[in-house]
Amino acid sequence: MFLSKMLHGGDYNPEQWLKYPEILEQDIEIMKNAKINCVSLGIFSWSSLEPQEGEFTFEWLDKVIENLYKNEIYTILATPTGSKPIWMSLKYPEILRVESNRIRNLPGGRHNHCYTSPIYRKKAKIINTKLAERYGKNPAVILWHISNELQGECHCDLCQSKFRKWLKAKYKTIENLNDQWWTTFWSHKFNDFNEIESPANHGELGMDGLTLDWKRFCTEQTVDFYKKEIEPIKKVNPNIPVTTNFMMFYDGVNYNKFKEHIDIASWDSYPSWHNGNGDETINAVYNAFYHDYVRSLKKSPFLLMECTPSSTNWTWVSKHKKPKMHKLASIQAIAHGANSIQYFQIRQSRGCAEKFHSAVISNNHKEENRIYNQVAEVGDILEKISQISSATIKPQVAIIYDVENKWALDISKGPRNAGNGYEDILFKNYKAFWSNNIPVDVIDMEEEIKDYKLVIAPMAYMLKKGFSSKIKSFVAEGGTFVSSYLSGVVNENSLCFMGELPAEELSDILGIYTEDVEGLYDDQSNSVVMIGEYMGLKGEYPSSKICEIIHTKTAEILGVYGSDFYKDEPVFTVNSHKNGYAYYIGTSTNQEFFNIFYKNICAELDIEKNIDVETPEGVTIGKRSYKEMDYYFIQNFTNETVSITLPYKLINILNDEVFEYELNLEPYDSYICTKWLKLEEL
Amino acid sequence: MFLSKMLHGGDYNPEQWLKYPEILEQDIEIMKNAKINCVSLGIFSWSSLEPQEGEFTFEWLDKVIENLYKNEIYTILATPTGSKPIWMSLKYPEILRVESNRIRNLPGGRHNHCYTSPIYRKKAKIINTKLAERYGKNPAVILWHISNELQGECHCDLCQSKFRKWLKAKYKTIENLNDQWWTTFWSHKFNDFNEIESPANHGELGMDGLTLDWKRFCTEQTVDFYKKEIEPIKKVNPNIPVTTNFMMFYDGVNYNKFKEHIDIASWDSYPSWHNGNGDETINAVYNAFYHDYVRSLKKSPFLLMECTPSSTNWTWVSKHKKPKMHKLASIQAIAHGANSIQYFQIRQSRGCAEKFHSAVISNNHKEENRIYNQVAEVGDILEKISQISSATIKPQVAIIYDVENKWALDISKGPRNAGNGYEDILFKNYKAFWSNNIPVDVIDMEEEIKDYKLVIAPMAYMLKKGFSSKIKSFVAEGGTFVSSYLSGVVNENSLCFMGELPAEELSDILGIYTEDVEGLYDDQSNSVVMIGEYMGLKGEYPSSKICEIIHTKTAEILGVYGSDFYKDEPVFTVNSHKNGYAYYIGTSTNQEFFNIFYKNICAELDIEKNIDVETPEGVTIGKRSYKEMDYYFIQNFTNETVSITLPYKLINILNDEVFEYELNLEPYDSYICTKWLKLEEL
Amino acid sequence: MFLSKMLHGGDYNPEQWLKYPEILEQDIEIMKNAKINCVSLGIFSWSSLEPQEGEFTFEWLDKVIENLYKNEIYTILATPTGSKPIWMSLKYPEILRVESNRIRNLPGGRHNHCYTSPIYRKKAKIINTKLAERYGKNPAVILWHISNELQGECHCDLCQSKFRKWLKAKYKTIENLNDQWWTTFWSHKFNDFNEIESPANHGELGMDGLTLDWKRFCTEQTVDFYKKEIEPIKKVNPNIPVTTNFMMFYDGVNYNKFKEHIDIASWDSYPSWHNGNGDETINAVYNAFYHDYVRSLKKSPFLLMECTPSSTNWTWVSKHKKPKMHKLASIQAIAHGANSIQYFQIRQSRGCAEKFHSAVISNNHKEENRIYNQVAEVGDILEKISQISSATIKPQVAIIYDVENKWALDISKGPRNAGNGYEDILFKNYKAFWSNNIPVDVIDMEEEIKDYKLVIAPMAYMLKKGFSSKIKSFVAEGGTFVSSYLSGVVNENSLCFMGELPAEELSDILGIYTEDVEGLYDDQSNSVVMIGEYMGLKGEYPSSKICEIIHTKTAEILGVYGSDFYKDEPVFTVNSHKNGYAYYIGTSTNQEFFNIFYKNICAELDIEKNIDVETPEGVTIGKRSYKEMDYYFIQNFTNETVSITLPYKLINILNDEVFEYELNLEPYDSYICTKWLKLEEL
Repeated sequence: MFLSKMLHGGDYNPEQWLKYPEILEQDIEIMKNAKINCVSLGIFSWSSLEPQEGEFTFEWLDKVIENLYKNEIYTILATPTGSKPIWMSLKYPEILRVESNRIRNLPGGRHNHCYTSPIYRKKAKIINTKLAERYGKNPAVILWHISNELQGECHCDLCQSKFRKWLKAKYKTIENLNDQWWTTFWSHKFNDFNEIESPANHGELGMDGLTLDWKRFCTEQTVDFYKKEIEPIKKVNPNIPVTTNFMMFYDGVNYNKFKEHIDIASWDSYPSWHNGNGDETINAVYNAFYHDYVRSLKKSPFLLMECTPSSTNWTWVSKHKKPKMHKLASIQAIAHGANSIQYFQIRQSRGCAEKFHSAVISNNHKEENRIYNQVAEVGDILEKISQISSATIKPQVAIIYDVENKWALDISKGPRNAGNGYEDILFKNYKAFWSNNIPVDVIDMEEEIKDYKLVIAPMAYMLKKGFSSKIKSFVAEGGTFVSSYLSGVVNENSLCFMGELPAEELSDILGIYTEDVEGLYDDQSNSVVMIGEYMGLKGEYPSSKICEIIHTKTAEILGVYGSDFYKDEPVFTVNSHKNGYAYYIGTSTNQEFFNIFYKNICAELDIEKNIDVETPEGVTIGKRSYKEMDYYFIQNFTNETVSITLPYKLINILNDEVFEYELNLEPYDSYICTKWLKLEEL
Repeated sequence: MFLSKMLHGGDYNPEQWLKYPEILEQDIEIMKNAKINCVSLGIFSWSSLEPQEGEFTFEWLDKVIENLYKNEIYTILATPTGSKPIWMSLKYPEILRVESNRIRNLPGGRHNHCYTSPIYRKKAKIINTKLAERYGKNPAVILWHISNELQGECHCDLCQSKFRKWLKAKYKTIENLNDQWWTTFWSHKFNDFNEIESPANHGELGMDGLTLDWKRFCTEQTVDFYKKEIEPIKKVNPNIPVTTNFMMFYDGVNYNKFKEHIDIASWDSYPSWHNGNGDETINAVYNAFYHDYVRSLKKSPFLLMECTPSSTNWTWVSKHKKPKMHKLASIQAIAHGANSIQYFQIRQSRGCAEKFHSAVISNNHKEENRIYNQVAEVGDILEKISQISSATIKPQVAIIYDVENKWALDISKGPRNAGNGYEDILFKNYKAFWSNNIPVDVIDMEEEIKDYKLVIAPMAYMLKKGFSSKIKSFVAEGGTFVSSYLSGVVNENSLCFMGELPAEELSDILGIYTEDVEGLYDDQSNSVVMIGEYMGLKGEYPSSKICEIIHTKTAEILGVYGSDFYKDEPVFTVNSHKNGYAYYIGTSTNQEFFNIFYKNICAELDIEKNIDVETPEGVTIGKRSYKEMDYYFIQNFTNETVSITLPYKLINILNDEVFEYELNLEPYDSYICTKWLKLEEL
Repeated sequence: MFLSKMLHGGDYNPEQWLKYPEILEQDIEIMKNAKINCVSLGIFSWSSLEPQEGEFTFEWLDKVIENLYKNEIYTILATPTGSKPIWMSLKYPEILRVESNRIRNLPGGRHNHCYTSPIYRKKAKIINTKLAERYGKNPAVILWHISNELQGECHCDLCQSKFRKWLKAKYKTIENLNDQWWTTFWSHKFNDFNEIESPANHGELGMDGLTLDWKRFCTEQTVDFYKKEIEPIKKVNPNIPVTTNFMMFYDGVNYNKFKEHIDIASWDSYPSWHNGNGDETINAVYNAFYHDYVRSLKKSPFLLMECTPSSTNWTWVSKHKKPKMHKLASIQAIAHGANSIQYFQIRQSRGCAEKFHSAVISNNHKEENRIYNQVAEVGDILEKISQISSATIKPQVAIIYDVENKWALDISKGPRNAGNGYEDILFKNYKAFWSNNIPVDVIDMEEEIKDYKLVIAPMAYMLKKGFSSKIKSFVAEGGTFVSSYLSGVVNENSLCFMGELPAEELSDILGIYTEDVEGLYDDQSNSVVMIGEYMGLKGEYPSSKICEIIHTKTAEILGVYGSDFYKDEPVFTVNSHKNGYAYYIGTSTNQEFFNIFYKNICAELDIEKNIDVETPEGVTIGKRSYKEMDYYFIQNFTNETVSITLPYKLINILNDEVFEYELNLEPYDSYICTKWLKLEEL
């Protein structure tokens, strides 16, 4: 199966070049030189495959797949539903999306279709069936790529009607919905499910439960459409795996809802490398977080489905990947569990919205072009590390990042409409592990947690059903739990809990309750003052954005506020609950705090590090393991030369070079090594 | 009657809690502990009172009112028209508001109804009649609260038609309208009133007269709707007073047009306390200005209908009132003439748009909660000062703040579209009195002025009919008048005056005429250079934003510009007219200028100060008097400890403490005192 | 004919004052005093000329024209189509413009009509015919002013249909269009021209070819409408010239497409004088560039159709022209080829959108008003320099500014969506000549270039058909060509060129090819490091915004990058091609670079300067010549006193003052001189 090696390739759109057969031939040569072994076809091919209604033209695709396969290039075959033909939009206007202003879009753009429309579903079924029947058993096709970057929402009458049914299925009675959405506020009690409209600027935006359920419904319609898309495919051949490519930090849909329906996870990684002074640590952390999020969906290797060979064209400023960055970013993906480096796109488009997006083969291709050579270099590397495709990552730490929780936080008015800082605090927690070379899973509240030693849930504002009792068992059985301000405030429908907060079991597990929470302006601050030393933490750490006033019940106070009217009130606490411990941090503090805290907690909990090595800021070491064999990924994301002391002999698996005692890392250096022996054991 | 004591309470929405009888019971206990004596009911109750068309359910309200009354808590009863039931919007779409883009809103939000719609008026009449009949003679009900924060405008066909009738009534002939609106510019002469449309981005926005009249019409429709609302209420019992709660600096309607239709003025005060470095002086001044504006409407005590017990949730950053701030702000309201401290809201909502707005009773209520205790402290104070409810304020100074003048300034293109600074200059003028402990009325151009000694009209851009002749008589009879740049430029329809400016009688009263006016960029400045010393002013004061080039006729030049091509041209003048004086300030200058100027003017004019005490920056002393008794409100809005020298013995009426010689004020300290004797007389 | 003297006057709207006959009389007196000899009438008169459909009222206009003429004031007669009567919009809604959101405007505003509408065209034809028949042979009427500031676009069904026909005429087959627009990307191949919709936010925005053609179509519809407007006029009397007034840097239409249809070019100049610290150099350069652009359209004197006597009212901050600025700006216009100084407007409006725009006669007119006197001073000057109206300018240098190229750059996503800097680099190139007193033509890519010695095409991104071969011949025949980054990238339809860039002949002429291009963030920079000295350039010059990585083929490397991964790669090159030279600058560098470079290039190429004098920063000397006579315009745009050394005796033609050896220029000083003899020849 394809996963026995590393994939290298990307989106390829030969339908743009059918009039240039010499280009198509040349492309294969260039791909082979760059050790490309796999391309994604058909993503934007619908109008080339069905140029008129019911008129299908697969011949060109037959030939492309065949030629590629002859040249040992596999095909990831896409369903073309991400962008539909113009004729279809014009003939069946109902398939065009309706924005929240209730105005139907014109044809154009991507993802401009209604997920509910029976006609669109039917059209998708027809083309998918035909694709499946024609290519579903073709050995060249190793994976189905369902649609493309699923996104957006539709407010048409069909969707409104479906939404009402969805609500009825969820709440059973309108009274129950009124209770959960608290519609009596502003006198908006519904008498019937049919009275409900999706949120709109010119309608209802202040009903948190409605907005939240609408977002859930949109995810479910998207998943439902996706499931309908794979039916004809799986019917022909259930053995070819399916995936769909996710987008970095896109929160329009909850990707976790896809996890049981995809065979392998995949995503499109476009970090903003080189947007600053040369130190790429922050960009690396953001990207690593999302790699881990996607890997955690299936808890097994994933595919990097898109990245740019060098620059994007749709950002504020188009920066090229500087020398070594493409290798660095590619090895980062592998280090976090990717089994592929795929590009958008193989050959540059001559026109339209992304014509200036870097491609493996530019319109002005020359063999000596730097971008092309960077790609070829990564092709070489991937070929040499094919065995790593079987290697996996098994973290003992989980960070809870729940998109529905983010929705609920973002929808709520207060306590800080100037930015609630959810991602910021997630990244600060995460970076401490990244810097300490400790692997992390990034999971949602619905995921099983019993096998972790440490679970961190920053701003666990919304408590999904069962989450707090899961945490309770986890701590009771010896787990360590860390939570923070704004946790346990609302239920799944964004309805405030009554009584002590954090709600449900959380207050007891944490041994505290909160009295109030307030926002700080950007130029206001407070501090966390440690009472003595704890886990290496001592003295004072800055606090910003949000401050919660908390009181302890059974918890021990570790730190207190340094100023304002809640000076000396607790801000950082620990509570012992049966066999475990639960921490609470009542404010947003700084990176140093988390670095020290988690480093010592992990040591205390005997949480396995990737390697027993201290790395300077901006350098991280990842690990993937297969049976007895460990692969180490040593990466310097800074633009400084640094050195790390090696307690082991490491062997660079790309060229068998041996490192001992000390490893010097030039800016953006990246090594993949195996470990020989601990030096002291030599 | 209720005004014989201070009210303490706020919006209470028991309809949200009908399924929780224990909560309703508990609420009464908590209210009583906090000395709450009055709540507003029914504001958002329409869908609870009329859950289906024609089906009324008053029983719960009967019980709530009764239970409260039994516990000595009065009811302010609201008409529920601020937010209507969903069923009504769906059955009668004509009642939904149409935005200026001519698109009808969906159901949802507050204030989403057409003030013109006969159906909505009918529905309002029915529910108001029923409420009046049921509760209009109930001794528990002491005040009617009509709708809630009246706001917004509707551009539906019904409103267009009403607007055209309104215009016809105003202008009589279309020719007259064409003349006043100067429609020949851009070739937009109307042949008929029926050709006129309300202003719109995709229609007409450049016709100042149209925009101005549209705003007037919207106010009048709002007033008209309000008047229709009170009809059935007054019919049942004309003795219960009515009010409607205004919003801080909301300029969508001209509140002055309500003054003859309300029995008592009331407003919702939400200053942005703690948005800076701790010195709350500026916030205090803004809030004080609006207190005085609302008090001046009826020239008698008003109600503070809403404030937050601690934080709002809809601001950029939700700040809590720090300790002492709630007391400080509450006493400030009383000092300026309020006879109540009412909250939004008594019990926190569990869901929807304002679920994180502070409430007297939070979802997580505990007796020891700080916010609750601050409320209870104010309850205590209000009980102790009930006698002040009869005390009044009689300023000898008036500042003209006319909302229609603001509209006209804001609509006009030039001379400074980057901000004309109307509020800024109002506040600078106002603050000089606030700092000098001199009471001020804030009135519009239509108000009688003859009883004042000093009338200040900054940027009196639009001259309402009769205003300039009123000023002329005022000055002739010995009054002192102060005006500034951009005064007397357009008539009531925003039509430029011909001939000398400031127009009508103003040029003669002021003894000057203006040649031109220009804007300064934010980084440009000029200065006012005094010719010698006048009223304590000497040397140079900075000038910014707008500079007017003026020439004197009969006026004496007091100051000239310090730079630019109009260096040495007059900028500050005084003119003697019969028995009075008229000052003109041709540019925006600084606070110090106004502080010195008005301090000395007031001394010269023998204008009564609240007390003969010098207070440091950020400290002010207010006064209310009833017969022989004066009550002094001494407040420190800074976060510094300051002291003031007392020429009197003062007695703290809350605890009979006696202050003499010197009074030390800690940060945010607030005292209510009576005066004993002048020390030197002892 | 009117061009034998300098025109002085402006827009005059007597229809606003028909009820004030004394005003109309007074206006003529004031105009005469200010030496106004020509006004524009009828611009916004439609509703005064045709107050009801088919009812015409020309009598007032007859009288106004006659009275003016009696007083030696000529009339420029406007067609009134820029703003139509309300009755017409209401009776024929199809004439109202439809925005890209597909919503039809309401009546109101200017330019709110559909250029395609047969009804609007018919109505325009009727009024224009009537105007032509009535005034087309009136000796008072010396010029037709067609509509006013033509602008905007309409997306109505009529325009959609016309657009589709236009596309069909251009592309012949839909396949050809698909190929050029590269519609296969995102699967948007069209099957029929009828499937195409104009660009829209809620439709297609990512198809560069569509957006570009839409803009071309809008220009062509505008031109077509304009052409239809002049038909009835020319039919009556082809001898009266026609013009239409353009707007500064308005790029909604491509004015170059008008050049063969206007008899004389004219424009409205509103630079932002005094928006900074007093040095007006940058504003002067922008304004000069546009003067030259407009003059280059017809390569003969043009009319300044509008400027403000002092301040506008629609800018962020309304600044007055300081003393001497109006004279300075007026002489600048003349220096660049204007034969008029016309104002918006003669008499101030009393109401509506521009009531605070400065006018020659204000609502508060006094004889001694500064603004009026400035106008009168310019009237005096214009009278004294009438002979200059025959004098012309003949540059040997051309800068290519092609609006379609700007469109293509702005539409493209990447490489720098934060601003591609096209205007910035144009101005930097231009300013070098302005500072060196060398005249420049500003032309588009379609213009003939063979008579220039130096042609500069910064960011010649889009190559119009024939442009590169024209450049090739130009260089081959000895011309010098300068180009820069992002040149030769796409064809006329925004389709990327394949193969070496810059494409077509450019790569060979320049002797280089580009590998890649990237954007820099605002806080990132690079540098141009000269290899030795060349044309006075040496050392290092800063680079910003965009960096192109280039390779030389036959070119000589003059400068290399100073940092980043392309350090030491070429950035500044020269290539010799047959008898000429072609330069390429791969990045955006600073003013100093261009100043030195062009100064020396011009010396080398023996390009004629206006005068052989060195001028300090901010001072420039223009020249117009008629037969043997040269007129020099010496202008100081700084607020410093500077002096220049004169190798000639110069005679101030306004007062016969003689300058020799040295000329001192006070801030904003402006002289018009003739040259006597070179001093050394004396």
